Amino acid sequence: MTSETKEARVLEAIRERRDLVNAAIDEELPVQHPERLYEATRYILEAGGKRLRPTVTTLAAEAVTGAEPMSADFREFAALDGNTVDVMRAAVAIEVIQSFTLIHDDIMDEDELRRGVPAVHEKYDTSTAILAGDTLYSKAFEFMTETGADPANGLEAMRMLASTCTEICEGQSLDVSFESRDDILPEEYLEMVELKTAVLYGASAATPAVLLGADDEVVDALYQYGIDSGRAFQIQDDVLDLTVPSEDLGKQRGSDLVEGKETLITLHARQQGVDVDGLVDADTPAEVTEEAIDDAVAALEDVGSIAYARETAEDLTERSKEHLEILPESGSRELLADLADYLIVRGY
Amino acid sequence: MTSETKEARVLEAIRERRDLVNAAIDEELPVQHPERLYEATRYILEAGGKRLRPTVTTLAAEAVTGAEPMSADFREFAALDGNTVDVMRAAVAIEVIQSFTLIHDDIMDEDELRRGVPAVHEKYDTSTAILAGDTLYSKAFEFMTETGADPANGLEAMRMLASTCTEICEGQSLDVSFESRDDILPEEYLEMVELKTAVLYGASAATPAVLLGADDEVVDALYQYGIDSGRAFQIQDDVLDLTVPSEDLGKQRGSDLVEGKETLITLHARQQGVDVDGLVDADTPAEVTEEAIDDAVAALEDVGSIAYARETAEDLTERSKEHLEILPESGSRELLADLADYLIVRGY
Repeated sequence: MTSETKEARVLEAIRERRDLVNAAIDEELPVQHPERLYEATRYILEAGGKRLRPTVTTLAAEAVTGAEPMSADFREFAALDGNTVDVMRAAVAIEVIQSFTLIHDDIMDEDELRRGVPAVHEKYDTSTAILAGDTLYSKAFEFMTETGADPANGLEAMRMLASTCTEICEGQSLDVSFESRDDILPEEYLEMVELKTAVLYGASAATPAVLLGADDEVVDALYQYGIDSGRAFQIQDDVLDLTVPSEDLGKQRGSDLVEGKETLITLHARQQGVDVDGLVDADTPAEVTEEAIDDAVAALEDVGSIAYARETAEDLTERSKEHLEILPESGSRELLADLADYLIVRGY
Repeated sequence: MTSETKEARVLEAIRERRDLVNAAIDEELPVQHPERLYEATRYILEAGGKRLRPTVTTLAAEAVTGAEPMSADFREFAALDGNTVDVMRAAVAIEVIQSFTLIHDDIMDEDELRRGVPAVHEKYDTSTAILAGDTLYSKAFEFMTETGADPANGLEAMRMLASTCTEICEGQSLDVSFESRDDILPEEYLEMVELKTAVLYGASAATPAVLLGADDEVVDALYQYGIDSGRAFQIQDDVLDLTVPSEDLGKQRGSDLVEGKETLITLHARQQGVDVDGLVDADTPAEVTEEAIDDAVAALEDVGSIAYARETAEDLTERSKEHLEILPESGSRELLADLADYLIVRGY
């Protein structure tokens, strides 16, 4: 199959699952009393998002049981013990956790925009944003207790969700602390990426395996699939920030560099002796020129830093796909592999 | 038994359980990497607190099984099915949830002090405070998955903890919204108190019953015990703010009134036609005189508002104790009843 066909198939899988997930969010998270609070919880979810994590969750459920893509009802998904599990509710739980972290991160990072609209703390206020995040947090845990899975499996899924949230907080804490440090090691950066981003992909892939009663090796393999593809996704994001035209990125190309955000690219370049802080002259993305970014990118390419990050992402993606080999062959397993590829080629 | 003896016995029970809870917090929540994050999570817990909710949890565990006070190890507490349950870990989970809400509430309310020391967002910064709260949140859920209870009971305890957290957020949201309203009804105020404060007492009392495998009627009765005594606790808090000398309160007496915070007392007074907003002239607790507070209290007493709140708290306390009658007679059941009384007499 050509890579264009593969990508089109992945995009189609994301689209059709996104529609199901959005319908499930409407059911699971209605606006209720107190309305302002619940409107704020819905606001970020309605602003968009590809629902990549629920796509991973639903695909992994199919791949665990050998079901073909979209052949089963995710609300009453047949577990390996003959029980039925509401896999969609678990997928919504994970998306809702993602939304909670976005809301709180935007407060901490003082980001005013999210998904092209004002962040929750800008649209409402900081108190409402803190509370909306806290509410999504507990709602996610409520959803995860109500999947109908065997209780031992349900409890294990809760344990995984809770420890994943702890790790996300640890990752965000490291990310915040990096802002005031100039001696970050590449391995520290990779640890931060794993905690802040990859563990939720790990949980997205492993949770259905837990709920459906798969063997520990299958659970572990899917978790590692999520970890490695999630790490690749984040590293590639740093590459794209430098290489994708501003109009496609939806923000100034190179803004991470202008804002002094460390990435695997800048950390590699520093190790090669590049004066990263002197690469661009501007202090804000608004005042930088495309030429200045071109020159900076050329300097980073010269020392191999962009290639290094790109190869790291590609290696991680290959590793992520190898973890899938434990699963029975199926169209869903293939889509999971293609999705890992897609995560590092997407042009936005 | 005289009420002095009863109170001394309750205080002794609180004290000995507090020491056990503090030791368990040290074990469950060590300072680890990233240190600054975990130091912030420990900071609020180390600043003090009576550990009233864990006291309720450990007493309720004993009362459910008929065990006498302090006769069993809370780490390996004998459940009704012969299994053993780490009731202490569940108690720590609930205390940790309480700490998370204090940290986030202090940010929202812009309170600078908590337990006599700077609030977390003052001691550290707002980002660290948001993250410390978020970390305690997930840690509490982690602890609750690790009690060793029968999985079905463990999952039910998780469901109760999650829905309790959602309700606490709803209560805080109502509390925040009340600040910009002048038409709050007493039943709205009571709903807010139930959500913001009482449900966590309900969960504190009912969770051990769930984990230990008690019948639904026992779970419900303990939950209602917690709800009614929690509501009484909060209403009495409003009375104490007006009636306890400033030096015993640890803050200016009448500060709720000065700051325009609605309570059951002010809402009752409004219904009697009192111009509550004109009762004291000062805008901040720092500039009010004891005489002005005395006059305001006298006005509120004249129309029966303080007596109304006090009687409401006493009625709720009596009701809370009636719920305990379903339990076998024991010293622990008696202490639970005495604790409900203590919650509305405590002189601070």
